[in-house]
Amino acid sequence: MIVKCIVAYDGSMYCGWQVQPGSPSIQETIEKALKKMHKREVSIVGSGRTDTGVHALGQVFHFETELKLTPFHWCAAINRLLPKSIRIQDAQVMPDDFHARFDVVSKRYDYYVTRDADNPFIQNYMGKERRELDLEAMRECASIFVGTHDFTSFTSNKIHAEKSRVRTITRVEAEAYESGVRMIFEGDGFLRYQVRMMAQTLIEAGLHHEDKDSILKMLEAKDKHACHYKAEACGLYLVKVNYEEE
Amino acid sequence: MIVKCIVAYDGSMYCGWQVQPGSPSIQETIEKALKKMHKREVSIVGSGRTDTGVHALGQVFHFETELKLTPFHWCAAINRLLPKSIRIQDAQVMPDDFHARFDVVSKRYDYYVTRDADNPFIQNYMGKERRELDLEAMRECASIFVGTHDFTSFTSNKIHAEKSRVRTITRVEAEAYESGVRMIFEGDGFLRYQVRMMAQTLIEAGLHHEDKDSILKMLEAKDKHACHYKAEACGLYLVKVNYEEE
Repeated sequence: MIVKCIVAYDGSMYCGWQVQPGSPSIQETIEKALKKMHKREVSIVGSGRTDTGVHALGQVFHFETELKLTPFHWCAAINRLLPKSIRIQDAQVMPDDFHARFDVVSKRYDYYVTRDADNPFIQNYMGKERRELDLEAMRECASIFVGTHDFTSFTSNKIHAEKSRVRTITRVEAEAYESGVRMIFEGDGFLRYQVRMMAQTLIEAGLHHEDKDSILKMLEAKDKHACHYKAEACGLYLVKVNYEEE
Repeated sequence: MIVKCIVAYDGSMYCGWQVQPGSPSIQETIEKALKKMHKREVSIVGSGRTDTGVHALGQVFHFETELKLTPFHWCAAINRLLPKSIRIQDAQVMPDDFHARFDVVSKRYDYYVTRDADNPFIQNYMGKERRELDLEAMRECASIFVGTHDFTSFTSNKIHAEKSRVRTITRVEAEAYESGVRMIFEGDGFLRYQVRMMAQTLIEAGLHHEDKDSILKMLEAKDKHACHYKAEACGLYLVKVNYEEE
């Protein structure tokens, strides 16, 4: 049986989604909980990775199981074995061909940046920029990213050359949020660091360091070295992963 | 010269205000930063202690210094040497007889409790109670604490017998806050655990486990064992310390 889970996590104390030597990953922490329940090794497949310090409200993963539980009892049982910083929000049995990564239709990420840089409670939860951001300028530049583009300029320059870096972005918004700005990014998928690089580029637009022309040039360059901006990981949230059946 | 500082801190990773063997305390972390600035040992005097995991928006401390800095530069200089979880909010030179503990006129503490117990982001920042709280019942019982009372029933039972346990409470409120309740406590001072014990007692009132009569009896008992409730530390915030000059 295939079970699909939606999970929220505070990424502050993890090395990211994927298992890595050193500090614990979200994935291995969840796999450890499932191992206790199943009394055997259980591998989970996430919708994609999140980097060190990145948070999730609605990350999705699947796994195979022989246990029969209701959604409520799946959540309760796994959560009891997980640290409080990782909380299963929902669980449901899926058709046998469901795959949390291959079946993704679109994803939404939000990025939060605040002027309130001396607030000790947001240090791990928002990007910081003390200066005022020009929301109108950010919105104008946000529109450049919408559509189907080759995002080579907005990803890690260590990415494999042979993989496609074309993605379709359907929504980029910037809105006032408390003493800062929330940006919303939605698309069929994102390259490594892409959201953080776009987010910081829009922050620079909000500071009038970049404008529509310069950002359009960056995008059109399709050059690994065209954009040297990357927003801090802690401001980024994987909000929702959408699948066809929904 | 005496400098008074207002400091906000995320208490999650500290053993509380006071120096203790083992994990770092807020006090020693600040003293370490001041030592670097002064190139000598500097002791700070807080308005009072906060327990492990308790947060502060407006804790106050003072120290003696020979350095001459503007308020802005005091904040910037200390914050540069502090971890991000402790942030100086304000600093000012005071008359030589100012004392952060002896001169306290009143303090305000807020307690947050949420129904949203599966939110990984509030785990260290709010008390949790999944059941709905009856705000009206909480408010009715809150009024019992207001006034000058012997709070022996609402403090650690290890407290020194010879010290007065009479305190004057001027304000106890309960109001809806997101998916939970915020309680506000203001008074001339609070005994160890007093706010957390009163907060949990009001939560029990909100669950109809206690009522005005039973709580009045607890208070009148002046008995160390009369109240066995104590809310989790993480929901408690020292919001403001008031002094006469203000």
